[in-house]
Amino acid sequence: MDPIIYCVIAGALSLIVAGFFARWILGQDEGTPAMKEIAGAIRIGANAFLSREYRILGIFIVVVAIILAFIPNLGWMASVSFILGGVTSTLTGYIGMQIAIRSNSRAGAAVQKSLNRGLQVAFRGGAIMGLSVVGIGLLGLSIVYFAFNGQVNFLTIIPAFGFGASGVALFARVGGGIYTKAADAGADLAGKVEAGIPEDDPRNAAVIADLVGDNVGDCAGAGGDLYETYVESIIAVITLSGVAVLASGSLGALVPNEQTAWFIPMLVGAVGIISSIIGVFLVRVREKASMGQLLNALRVGTTTASVLAAVLSWVVVYLFKADMGIFWAILAGLITGVLIGLGTDYYTSYAYKPTQRVAAASQTGAGTVILSGFANGLMSNLPSVILVAIATVLSYRFAGIYGVAISAIGMLSTLGIWDATDAYGPIADNAGGIVEMAGLPHEVRDKTDALDALGNTTKATNKGFAIAAAALTAIGLVFAYNTAVGIEFSELSLLDARVVAGMLLGALMPALFVAMTVSAVSRTTFAIINEVRRQFHEIKGLMEGTAKPDYARCVTICTNSALRNLIAPTILAIVVPIVVGVIFGKLALGGFLIGSTATGFILAITLANAGGSWDNAKKYVESGQFGGKGSDAHKAAVVGDTVGDPFKDTAGPSLNIMIKLMSIVALLLAPVITNFTGLF
Amino acid sequence: MDPIIYCVIAGALSLIVAGFFARWILGQDEGTPAMKEIAGAIRIGANAFLSREYRILGIFIVVVAIILAFIPNLGWMASVSFILGGVTSTLTGYIGMQIAIRSNSRAGAAVQKSLNRGLQVAFRGGAIMGLSVVGIGLLGLSIVYFAFNGQVNFLTIIPAFGFGASGVALFARVGGGIYTKAADAGADLAGKVEAGIPEDDPRNAAVIADLVGDNVGDCAGAGGDLYETYVESIIAVITLSGVAVLASGSLGALVPNEQTAWFIPMLVGAVGIISSIIGVFLVRVREKASMGQLLNALRVGTTTASVLAAVLSWVVVYLFKADMGIFWAILAGLITGVLIGLGTDYYTSYAYKPTQRVAAASQTGAGTVILSGFANGLMSNLPSVILVAIATVLSYRFAGIYGVAISAIGMLSTLGIWDATDAYGPIADNAGGIVEMAGLPHEVRDKTDALDALGNTTKATNKGFAIAAAALTAIGLVFAYNTAVGIEFSELSLLDARVVAGMLLGALMPALFVAMTVSAVSRTTFAIINEVRRQFHEIKGLMEGTAKPDYARCVTICTNSALRNLIAPTILAIVVPIVVGVIFGKLALGGFLIGSTATGFILAITLANAGGSWDNAKKYVESGQFGGKGSDAHKAAVVGDTVGDPFKDTAGPSLNIMIKLMSIVALLLAPVITNFTGLF
Repeated sequence: MDPIIYCVIAGALSLIVAGFFARWILGQDEGTPAMKEIAGAIRIGANAFLSREYRILGIFIVVVAIILAFIPNLGWMASVSFILGGVTSTLTGYIGMQIAIRSNSRAGAAVQKSLNRGLQVAFRGGAIMGLSVVGIGLLGLSIVYFAFNGQVNFLTIIPAFGFGASGVALFARVGGGIYTKAADAGADLAGKVEAGIPEDDPRNAAVIADLVGDNVGDCAGAGGDLYETYVESIIAVITLSGVAVLASGSLGALVPNEQTAWFIPMLVGAVGIISSIIGVFLVRVREKASMGQLLNALRVGTTTASVLAAVLSWVVVYLFKADMGIFWAILAGLITGVLIGLGTDYYTSYAYKPTQRVAAASQTGAGTVILSGFANGLMSNLPSVILVAIATVLSYRFAGIYGVAISAIGMLSTLGIWDATDAYGPIADNAGGIVEMAGLPHEVRDKTDALDALGNTTKATNKGFAIAAAALTAIGLVFAYNTAVGIEFSELSLLDARVVAGMLLGALMPALFVAMTVSAVSRTTFAIINEVRRQFHEIKGLMEGTAKPDYARCVTICTNSALRNLIAPTILAIVVPIVVGVIFGKLALGGFLIGSTATGFILAITLANAGGSWDNAKKYVESGQFGGKGSDAHKAAVVGDTVGDPFKDTAGPSLNIMIKLMSIVALLLAPVITNFTGLF
Repeated sequence: MDPIIYCVIAGALSLIVAGFFARWILGQDEGTPAMKEIAGAIRIGANAFLSREYRILGIFIVVVAIILAFIPNLGWMASVSFILGGVTSTLTGYIGMQIAIRSNSRAGAAVQKSLNRGLQVAFRGGAIMGLSVVGIGLLGLSIVYFAFNGQVNFLTIIPAFGFGASGVALFARVGGGIYTKAADAGADLAGKVEAGIPEDDPRNAAVIADLVGDNVGDCAGAGGDLYETYVESIIAVITLSGVAVLASGSLGALVPNEQTAWFIPMLVGAVGIISSIIGVFLVRVREKASMGQLLNALRVGTTTASVLAAVLSWVVVYLFKADMGIFWAILAGLITGVLIGLGTDYYTSYAYKPTQRVAAASQTGAGTVILSGFANGLMSNLPSVILVAIATVLSYRFAGIYGVAISAIGMLSTLGIWDATDAYGPIADNAGGIVEMAGLPHEVRDKTDALDALGNTTKATNKGFAIAAAALTAIGLVFAYNTAVGIEFSELSLLDARVVAGMLLGALMPALFVAMTVSAVSRTTFAIINEVRRQFHEIKGLMEGTAKPDYARCVTICTNSALRNLIAPTILAIVVPIVVGVIFGKLALGGFLIGSTATGFILAITLANAGGSWDNAKKYVESGQFGGKGSDAHKAAVVGDTVGDPFKDTAGPSLNIMIKLMSIVALLLAPVITNFTGLF
């Protein structure tokens, strides 16, 4: 029997469990009529954004699919694979978001009964997302395998699937990221800071847009990102193994035959899914659990899943009679992922010195808060980069460049449960917003705040993990690109100035990309602030609570601006690698891809953790430190948070996708790029 | 006759002209008694800092010199070369600063007569610095040449000179940078923002420290930086050419013999000095010149120098019967430097859209100013990186890695006059401060403001130029390191995961370095703010002007903190390359150096230009836009400037030195590192 059948089974099982959770959640109470009304408004806003986004996405997919069909060595099969990658990625985001916008009010209602009940609803909502990502991912790749396995150009068809997933992910991440942060900052600056009304106050015209943003950005966007990382880590290994075996035979010592080199990553994915499902079911707490117990419950789930995945991966490598070096590489990736999560927590949680120092800097004003948080974000690269560097060197020693690529799969094997703890966050956040807007008692809001705080902790941890996984995957893809275009080991030398120049240009890309996305958020925020100001000014009785603001107007502004601004960065990421290849040649492109990965990695961590620590420094001040809420220190801390939001939720995560997207474009176009020798 | 004699003549001529200017300046009127008193206080503060800095520096130089003497293949001759590099670098900074702290009050006095007179004093003060840098640099290298030429290990003695220059430069830049920006921000935040008194108000206890800072940071620090870049660009070519010829003979087609490959860079330096001197004398304006005419006068000088340097470089290459590819590489560097200057101006001057947009963002608060300026800084990488990448590829095509290294010399050939326009800035800035503190009429201050504005423009332009030159020089040094440790072209492959891991670690270094320097500024600023607050609180009659603040206390705080905080970054830059070599091997170190160069380059530009545009956005608001001085927009713009100051004047420029320092350490220790194979 073809071993990929097991992948189909694991993928299907994952979706069945997700379906079971979905039924359970939809059976829960939706809360008071006010809560239903608000949740309804969020749903309408979110779906409006998605339907507009899908229209652009549809055009993108059709145009690119047609182009691919005409490229030599790719053809219609690559187009089909591309469409499949794009559609499955869209589906993942869609499912995750539909569940999220239904879980939010239900989590708010459940929390009225007990904290544990609230956790269950929110966490299972997140688990649906996590299990969908891995289940659909593995199923999608299996379909491509069964459809096109045996084709001469199978190894160029597979990357097209990744390209589809990447393209959609970038749209979702950039579009959603601009939307959510502009709405958030606009609502805060015009409402909290200027008008002096509380967060999530219904008089604020941008408040619904803000809640919609949590879903389209943090939920659909993050799902697309992880989906892409997941499938591309597998694609990198498959492509690499095939090409490496054919080209140099260097893989011969590792695996008995070429097919085994493909089967291993797929099956490590399958056993990872089983481990994740078991882990998800272990997340349980007794009624009246404390925050510590809640966090512990999540840790029991993720730790068990990791241990299980490690053991089962050993079994996979053993059964395929492959070199045990492959297992050690997988293990190196898995352990690195766990350690990086811990490091991120240290730099961003206000339980530790670094973020406390950022908070203390608020006493001398916004300027010093910014400097201190930025320095902290830069410093936080220390553990992640060293750990990834060690993982790279170790897995290379264990199993060559194949080992480096497969270590990313090790890191991602338990993605099902990691992503569950991540997607849980925006649901808890939304639940809090709905409870506040619906005017429920403060003790209910306190409980949702507790859930939200838990979500912030897991979110910070997972960001570090997601970035590291993306970096390792990108490195795997670059190796795959290099071998696919026939670059010899001895050619890609840093003593060739073309490679160095390529690296410099690659390092430039993340900088431009962040500049574009951050500017887009700034512009959109500006528009939202003016709109909220206008409504306060023009709608009579709004401030007194006798009239309602025009929420839809802010939703429309966000939607339009987000969609307008995602086009340029996407084109940049797709077109520039090709241009660099044409002008400077394929060797320079090899340097380019590694340069963008290295700088993108550093920049993504910096932005994510600087943002995380500003966010938590603000919360620390709000907890009563340095004068507490309303003090000058608090105002300074709010500025930090305003700067940090687009850093951590728009630009930073988008970088993850960009570095992979550029590599997959280069890998996909390898048959063409092989002929690029450059103009100089 | 040995052609290096011409270098001695050119170097001596440069110093003679500098001496002539010095005599002229010292003959100028020092101004009113009040001005003399203030200038005296600045001199005392600056010299106090320098003497303390030199004590630490002395220990550093002695300790390292002793260590070098015991390293195989280096020995006492390398120690002597190292000490010479350190002492000459110190001397350059010392001369530049002594002149600056004597030109400041004289420029303030001269401006009372006419704007042109003020320009002459300030510009000639700057020219002394510029001519000293290139004159002493070329003389120092000539001394090493005449002393040790012919020794077997001549090519390992030469880099020791660069290491000495680098070490001193890092001390001067980091220490001076922390000092100047902490004093500046502390004075502004505690004085302008909190107490509501004007800039440079004598009641502010930190105001003398601020004026001292301009000299020790912007003047002595910047001089050390450019001195290092200048000598190391020549060292890179000399080392590279020697090793490359001996190892592979690949240089054979370019130059008739090995010695020619050393003579060319030295003599290009010599003709550059002659061109710079001629350029300096062309900077003249008529009395009552407008701002445009002032700027134009500077441009006439620099443009003439560039054209002359190009022509004379052609003559040098021609006379040595070398391949004309070398000339084209030099020309590529020269042109790139000029173009990069123009690009920087576009992103940082408020005459153009980017900075106007940053200023406009101040209307919605400090958060959006920060985001907008940061995005602008990132975007400003576009021209510089593309230009350097093209220069790299072109010069590689013209003359291989030798061409890449020598293109940096082309860029730096007219450093004498470039640096003059740079060192002019702090003198004009100081003149303004003294005029204000001495209570001179407003029309005098307006004139010094005009000179200051001109200085800001040239400073921004030169920063881009200095960063690009540092990056090209670092690339040259990395090539030299690789060949010196015997890494073959085919070994340093990006398909070797150790090289990739090294690159990631290298990319980490600039991030850590910026984090450390920015944190140091934050901490020191915090201390200064508290001290100024304390004095306002405790010294009776201070606010009313009947009592004087304790200026010396702030000077001492800055001095102590700056010196304490420069040690860790220096050790980081020297020790980490060695640690990476030991743990990951010499191949990984090759990747490491390139990784840090690429990321350091991007980060340095981002910080310099974000800082520049925040600074000018604030000035744009102060010119009456968006509410002008005192408005909420202005407060927001001030936050931007506070963040930008340590970015552009501490962290950013220090990165220039760090990337070169790490490469020169690796190059110097090549005989040892050759044996490093790594632990994995």
